[in-house]
Amino acid sequence: MAFDASALPDVSGRTVGIIGGTGDQGRGLAYRFARAGHPVVIGSRSAERAAQAAAEIGALPGVAAAPSGAANDEAAHRSDIVVIAVPWDGHAATVAALREPLAGKLVVDCVNPLGFDKQGPYALPVPEGSAVQQCAALLPESTVCGAFHHVSAPLLADPEVERIDLDVLICGEDREAIATVAALAGRIPGMRGIYAGRLRNAHQVEALTANLIAINKRYKAHAGIRVTDL
Amino acid sequence: MAFDASALPDVSGRTVGIIGGTGDQGRGLAYRFARAGHPVVIGSRSAERAAQAAAEIGALPGVAAAPSGAANDEAAHRSDIVVIAVPWDGHAATVAALREPLAGKLVVDCVNPLGFDKQGPYALPVPEGSAVQQCAALLPESTVCGAFHHVSAPLLADPEVERIDLDVLICGEDREAIATVAALAGRIPGMRGIYAGRLRNAHQVEALTANLIAINKRYKAHAGIRVTDL
Repeated sequence: MAFDASALPDVSGRTVGIIGGTGDQGRGLAYRFARAGHPVVIGSRSAERAAQAAAEIGALPGVAAAPSGAANDEAAHRSDIVVIAVPWDGHAATVAALREPLAGKLVVDCVNPLGFDKQGPYALPVPEGSAVQQCAALLPESTVCGAFHHVSAPLLADPEVERIDLDVLICGEDREAIATVAALAGRIPGMRGIYAGRLRNAHQVEALTANLIAINKRYKAHAGIRVTDL
Repeated sequence: MAFDASALPDVSGRTVGIIGGTGDQGRGLAYRFARAGHPVVIGSRSAERAAQAAAEIGALPGVAAAPSGAANDEAAHRSDIVVIAVPWDGHAATVAALREPLAGKLVVDCVNPLGFDKQGPYALPVPEGSAVQQCAALLPESTVCGAFHHVSAPLLADPEVERIDLDVLICGEDREAIATVAALAGRIPGMRGIYAGRLRNAHQVEALTANLIAINKRYKAHAGIRVTDL
């Protein structure tokens, strides 16, 4: 079968939680999902900082219903689909602490384990293989996918950018969950969610962000990727 | 600076050697470079098999000057730019044996270290980090880049396919060599060669081929990637 967005489930109205929603990537995704009409809950270690970020996002153009803010565990509890967008440093601890509120939920990890030195970014080794495999190992009662690794935070955050033309590569083991994440990606104009292999092949998807950063630097771009022939 | 194909060097007339030119990927690349008017030398362990592949490619539509065939060391010796397109199994031994004829040359490694089991493809660990880093370690007198990992062999081989619309991600350390490889990629209609980071970030580019194979299987496609915002 070819890629067919019309075959994906309807996820409109589903509440999206963003753990680490006060960071650049989380904040940008929160804005885009709110702009697409989703109820959004911004999660942070500090409920106060979460509420502040939620108010700021709610004031941006195109947002009908302002996101709410909550501590991470409350944000997880109140959401149908939960995006993990925390820094790699602290990923394991944050995810492990949310095992109970995330049980039974669809969890989407978009964390890129990268290091930086004077030569730029590079992929960090992860004992579990990848951030999303670490997440899956720590959340045995959740359904875990990896996605949204390559989406430029500046583009997400720019209210004047209407469309973000790129593909979201989704790694996972559960076909229904993958379809749901693909549908969620498709809520952002210009994006397609593409199944891109099992979790054991997620490392290189995460690590490719280092290459996109190199591309951005060389060509002064906000690079993403589009899968051809689909 | 944005991507600007007109700023790339003129590589027309440069002789391209393909080590492992009798395999699917090497044969397909040989066909495309011959079709673009390059003198091409197919290399193989067996000069006879190389000559046979060269004759077959020379008989395909659009090829003005038939490639020649030679044993790998002779093919390396006679070429300006040498593409390594051998199977991963045997990569190190083949490359190491060509140290002398490849000295001073531009070497482009397109090998993907992948394993396959009943769940499909997966990235193999490489002690040097990636196939191209192994190649660079074995060829200290050559200039080594990684490129052409994601190009679909069936598309390359299909004479009715005029354009192959995708980007070739190039990893390397030498700016002039990268520009030459970008120009070479641009000789194939529809392709752009994009600098995508240093050699230490090549592993994920090679490994991403596993994800493209998963995409091909799910969506019945010949997937490649295009970098957006360039």
